[in-house]
Parts: sequence; C-alpha cells; structure tokens
Amino acid sequence: MQTLIWKTLSPAQQADVLTRPALSDEADIGAVVREIISAVRSRGDEALRELSQRFERAPRQQLQVSNAEIEAACARLDDDIKGAIEAAITNIRTFHAAQAQPVVRVETQPGVVCELRTQPIGRVGLYVPGGSAPLPSTVMMLAIPARLAGCREVVLCTPSPASDEILFAARACGVEKVFAIGGAQAIAAMAYGTQSIPKVDKIFGPGNAYVTEAKGQVSRDWRGAAIDMPAGPSEVLVIADESANPAFVAADLLSQAEHGPDSQVVLVTTSPLLADAIGAEIKGQLAKLTRRDIAAKALGSSLVILCDNLDEACAISNAYAPEHLIVQTRAPRELLDRLENAGSIFLGAWTPESVGDYASGTNHTLPTYGYARTCSSLGLADYQRRYTVQELSESGIRGLGPIVERIAQAEGLDGHKNAVTLRLQALAGAAQTGSQQKDLS
Amino acid sequence: MQTLIWKTLSPAQQADVLTRPALSDEADIGAVVREIISAVRSRGDEALRELSQRFERAPRQQLQVSNAEIEAACARLDDDIKGAIEAAITNIRTFHAAQAQPVVRVETQPGVVCELRTQPIGRVGLYVPGGSAPLPSTVMMLAIPARLAGCREVVLCTPSPASDEILFAARACGVEKVFAIGGAQAIAAMAYGTQSIPKVDKIFGPGNAYVTEAKGQVSRDWRGAAIDMPAGPSEVLVIADESANPAFVAADLLSQAEHGPDSQVVLVTTSPLLADAIGAEIKGQLAKLTRRDIAAKALGSSLVILCDNLDEACAISNAYAPEHLIVQTRAPRELLDRLENAGSIFLGAWTPESVGDYASGTNHTLPTYGYARTCSSLGLADYQRRYTVQELSESGIRGLGPIVERIAQAEGLDGHKNAVTLRLQALAGAAQTGSQQKDLS
Repeated sequence: MQTLIWKTLSPAQQADVLTRPALSDEADIGAVVREIISAVRSRGDEALRELSQRFERAPRQQLQVSNAEIEAACARLDDDIKGAIEAAITNIRTFHAAQAQPVVRVETQPGVVCELRTQPIGRVGLYVPGGSAPLPSTVMMLAIPARLAGCREVVLCTPSPASDEILFAARACGVEKVFAIGGAQAIAAMAYGTQSIPKVDKIFGPGNAYVTEAKGQVSRDWRGAAIDMPAGPSEVLVIADESANPAFVAADLLSQAEHGPDSQVVLVTTSPLLADAIGAEIKGQLAKLTRRDIAAKALGSSLVILCDNLDEACAISNAYAPEHLIVQTRAPRELLDRLENAGSIFLGAWTPESVGDYASGTNHTLPTYGYARTCSSLGLADYQRRYTVQELSESGIRGLGPIVERIAQAEGLDGHKNAVTLRLQALAGAAQTGSQQKDLS
Repeated sequence: MQTLIWKTLSPAQQADVLTRPALSDEADIGAVVREIISAVRSRGDEALRELSQRFERAPRQQLQVSNAEIEAACARLDDDIKGAIEAAITNIRTFHAAQAQPVVRVETQPGVVCELRTQPIGRVGLYVPGGSAPLPSTVMMLAIPARLAGCREVVLCTPSPASDEILFAARACGVEKVFAIGGAQAIAAMAYGTQSIPKVDKIFGPGNAYVTEAKGQVSRDWRGAAIDMPAGPSEVLVIADESANPAFVAADLLSQAEHGPDSQVVLVTTSPLLADAIGAEIKGQLAKLTRRDIAAKALGSSLVILCDNLDEACAISNAYAPEHLIVQTRAPRELLDRLENAGSIFLGAWTPESVGDYASGTNHTLPTYGYARTCSSLGLADYQRRYTVQELSESGIRGLGPIVERIAQAEGLDGHKNAVTLRLQALAGAAQTGSQQKDLS
C-alpha cells in the first residue's frame, strides 16, 4: 500500500489520488454483447440453449430450474447454513420492510389535493453471478425487497449449475422462477423475453464485464429494461484514529481486497503509528487467506492517507465517495453529520463491513466508482415507482384556475389555458342559472 | 384521430396500437454532440462563447446573467404574472416539502442497529429550454425540490436571451447562478465544469434532441454527471365514461396536443357517443388555438379506443403506461387501485392536466414514452441520495457474528469471515481475562 501525507499534496495531486483508475475497456465487449442480444431477441430459447452449450459449466436444454431440482438442492444443504441464511433473511426483511412509504397527501390550497403514492414495479429480473463461489447473499439482497415491494413477477437468472445455496435462498426469499443461464444472454432474455423467460421491466444485480455491458445496452433501449445502478469494482474507505484496533482495521481492508484484483482499498488515518501497525497486521493476516493472491493484487494499488485531523479525514472521504465507509474512531457517530457521499457507513469497532455484506439487514448492493455522489444504496424504493395524484373540487379550480390561466398565457400555451377557462365558465354558468350542483370541497 | 374498437383487435394488434412510434433518429446528432462536448471539455468558456455566437439568438461574452440583469428583468415583469408564479411556487413548495423522509432506524436483532438516511446531492444543474415561449414553470419544477433538498449548489442554464419570466422564477426559487447558454454545450459545461460554470453531480430538465443526446452521453461517462430520467415526447391518456363533459375532455386532449407534433394523445372510453361529441368539440376548439397547426399534427397520429367497461380501460392504460392520465368518470377515485404505470393521475372533471403542469403542487417532470413503468414522477427524492448506516454493539456482533461467519464460509470469502472471527475472539479474550470493557448494548 502506498502511503501519502495529505497536506504535502497539491490540490491537483489530491484530486488525482482520489480518482478511480480507468476500467480496462475491452473494445470488443460491446460488439460481442450486441450480437448476443440480437441472437436472443430473434431466436429466443433456441439461442439461449446454444449459448448455454458454449458458455455454461453445466449446459442445459431445460432453462428453468424445476421444483424438483430446487427441493433436492434444499434437501442436500446443511442445516447450519440454512439457519444462517434464514437468520440473515429475517434481518434484511425487517430493515427493508421498515422502508415502506406512506401516501403523502397534502391540500396545497383549498380544494386542491395532491398525493404522492408508491406502487411496485410490475416485473423484475434478478441476476446472480456464478463464478468461483455461490452467492446466496446476492439472492437475498435482490429478492427480499422485490417481494416486500409487491412486484407481480420476480425471476432470477444465474449461471448453470445453480448452487444449492442459491436455490435455497431463492426459495426462502419467494422467487418463483429460477433460470440456470448466465452472462449477457441472461440479461437479454430478461430484457426482451423469450419463450421460457418472461420479459421484465427492470433488472437488478452484479456481474462480469459482459453482464454489465448487456445491462447498459438494454437500459438504453426503450424496448429493453431499466437497471438498478451503474457498476464498478467494489471499494472501501476506512477512517481510523489512534484508538482503532489495528487487527480489526487490517481484517476489514483485507475483506475488501479479497473481492477482486481491481478492488479499491483506502485507509485514511490521523495516526502514522496506527498505519504502521495495520501494515504489519495485514502481512500476518494475508498469508492465511485462501484468496491471498487476489487480495495482494488489490492491496498493490491501495492507499494509506495520513491526515491531520478527523475533519480532514471526512473531507477526503467525501471527495472520494466510497461504496463502503468504515469509521473506527473514538466517537464514530459524532462524525456522521460530516460524512457525505458514502453508500453504506459502518460505525465503530464492532461493525465490520462483512456484517452488512450478509446479515445485519442493510443491502449490500451499493453505488461504487464514485457513483455514491448521486446514486443510493439499493432499497425498497428501487422496486417501486413514485407517482402523483391530484384532485380538485369546484372550489379548488375556482381558486387555482386564474393562476394557471396566467402562467399558461405567459408560456403561450392557449390550449392549457382553455382547459381551465372552459371549466371556470361552466362553473360561472352553473352559478348564474342557480344550478343545484354542489361543491364537494 | 383514429378510432379503434378494442375487443375486435388481436392481442398482437392491441400491443401494436399501444407501442410508441419510433423517435426520429438522426444519426449525426450523436457525432455533433460528441464534438460539442469535447470542445467544451478541452476549451471551456472559450468554446462556450464561440458556440454562443453560432447558436444563440442573443450571443453573449459574459455567460452568467448578472444580478443587475435579473433585477431589471424582475422590475419589468407585470405584477399579475409575478403573483401567479409566486402562488404556484407556494403550492409546489408545500407538496414537495411534505415528501421529506425521516430517518428509518431499526434494531434488526439485539445490538444491531440499521439506519436508512437521506442526504442532498451536493451540486445540481438545471436546464430550462428556450424556444418559442418562456418556461417559468420548468424553473419552478426543477429548482424548488433542489432547494428543499438542501443541495449545496444549484445552477441553471437556459438559452440566451433568458426571458424575464425565467429570471424572475429562478430568483423566486432561490437559484444562485443563472447562465444564458443553451443546447448540448450547456449540458457539457454543467457535467464537466468550465472556468465560469461549476461542475455539477446531476443534471435535470427537458430539452431538444441535442440536449437529450448530450444528457445521455454525459451520464454514461463516470466523470460526467447523472441525469434525472430518460426523455421522450409528452403524452396523455384520458379514461372517460358517458358522464364526462365532452368539452372538458376535448380541451384536455388539445392541451396535450399543442405541446408538439410528436405529442401522443389517447382517449379510452366506454361511450361511442361521448367519443363523437369529443370529436366535434375538438374541431371547434382547435380552430381558436394559436398553436393549432402543431396540435392538428399531433392529433393526426392520436387514438380513440372504444372499450366495454372501466376495467378494460384501466388495463389499456396500464399497458400503455402514460405520462399523464386523466380520469373523467362518475367515480374516478374508485379506479385508483386498478391504475398502474402512470406518471401523474388527474381525477375528475375539475382537474385538467394544466393544473399539474403549473400550479397544483405536483411536479410536471414525468416519465414518458413508456418509462412510467419503472421511472417515478420527479420529486424531492431525486435531489437526494439514500444511504445506510449500521452500528453493532459488543452483544450485537456476538449474536450476529456466527451467522456472518457461516455465510462467508459458504461463499468462500475467508477475509470476510476473519473480520468477524477476530472480533469474536477479542471479545472472548476480554471476557476470559475479566476485562472491565462494558458492552454498550
């Protein structure tokens, strides 16, 4: 890890240090993905089966995982992992259920009622990567809010073979349809629909460069599907003062580094002594990790930033906008009001990032690569749409009408004005003729 | 307007009828915009001044509109339009202020506290188109939630000359910096910053094809800026039964049609008699509109759909996913639970769309072109980011730790597991040595 003393850097150097490295941009990924999407759109399941033969570890003819297969997977699984997954589900469900929004109803002026309501997005597709290890946590994080939101259809795609853990988690979270197909072709199938895979309105979940590219392409096509958020490598920033436990901080940095060689790991501390102690701890802990080669690579491009005080540390974190922000200081909650642009914040010595990755209740799907400046942590709201409702009574349009007429006139939109004028005239006429029509307001 | 009887159509025909027409896709817009963005990124204000000379009706050297200019504009404006704008601002502010979200704080299991918090997005840029008429309403709809959210910096770009109405509305809504520059170059300036125009994190607002393309391009670059939502032509769907006033419905359809020749106008009714009466009303009202040529063009591609009952009408609307949905039936609120995928809903005879366009309090920035299936009406939430915070006590990690260890193990992530194990060991050690450390939970 490279160590920098913040105040010795020029503003331009400081900005440079906090800029994410450019992502390796393989030029042909776009073209390959376009071809895959086009094949899936034109030939549906037939194309998926061919692609399954070419790319899956366990190619399938029958794309949907049957109930019998899911039940067999659940039966094979140890009780203790089942129990752990169920306990995590309970926490995640509790926290996401609490995010439900009541209807906002305001009478902005007499007889003018405005409402903000939420509704589930109709059909959602979840993508759970395969790769070196099964990721039941991804299933939980994507599926639980979908079910809580009340989405009518929830489908899940994952490379074949789908692991027992993934199938168990999908069943436990109420996912109805699981398809053992991965890659760009799975994204294409969910975005446009095939004979066996339903078209969805929005696609959620992480993936490799092909999956990410496919999500980008289908989200730019209005006939395709919306997506959850832009993707980037995972990252953590730790703010630590001299009170921090070096072994804990080292473990937290390593748990980020093991995600992938492009993981970003940043330590911001007021204590050079602590930085040294953490360095020594990392050496010792790294040697024992299964994924030590991956972690070592990530650490190679990681940073230690020495700063003068915690205000400066917060400013550095705010400028970086980390996906995960761990605060290990004497009074971590006191920093909360000064912290901006973080995806999820972990306060204090007893809150390692891995609790949020799995089981505390928060979602681990978070904006990375600086997108935390504008994007939110995934939550119930991402599976819902907000829409407004308005209703005017006769007295409402009488009071508001002249205001609308005046602004419409300024904007040169007669038709907009006329829609109000006709109503005001009708009300005036009704009043003159002594109509019995009652004002409801 | 073409009239169709819904039940005589095949499902494929029905789907076809509700599919938006493809947008005219001028191939060179992308290249032109790329060039403009590149010029603004490399040469900043100098490029903006050159582009101002080429494209603006009133080219400027000084891009920022000065305080003196704004004050002069406000002084020139009639009191009645000022009063109307101020009344609209009050309503919009009232409704958007009510959308503020309290912190969600849940103890998911003993000693495990999870919070969902919101924070303003730091810097936002608002784009207000110029064109044939000034659009003070766009200023209000974009700026009021920005200010209520507490965004640190709010800048606005609009083509030169900025109208008095726009400058007055900007001042009244608390926009600090107004720049008289429009087009793709304005979007580029806000996305990347120039000497005079600050870089922003997120850009809001409508615009022509060049503005839309520029928003797309800068939002796909992680060094650029996020944007509010995808763009498309404005549209309305009216559900009406035999109780509807044909003059009112005709006026509402026309107020949509006058927006532009590509506006979509759809009437869904259970009453052929009403449809005929509306057709006659449209003829009479159209002739009197200033923008009758535009409205007539839009009506040329518009639809009347005759259906059997209101359930079918709701299903048609849900499949179409209209930006604006007007319900003029005997008991409009009764349909609310059956209506999905609309951007904003206008209930009853006294609620023309134009009240929501200007002054009822709801936002007129709405998802169109079918995006209402997944996108929300613009609101306070779009100027905020949601993030999570978690804090475990010693007893919290004791209870949750083993669950996290078990799942981390299943996912093959030792480092994640170790971050918990080390802490559990420290606690066990402290307990054994009779440490005085107190559990805070």
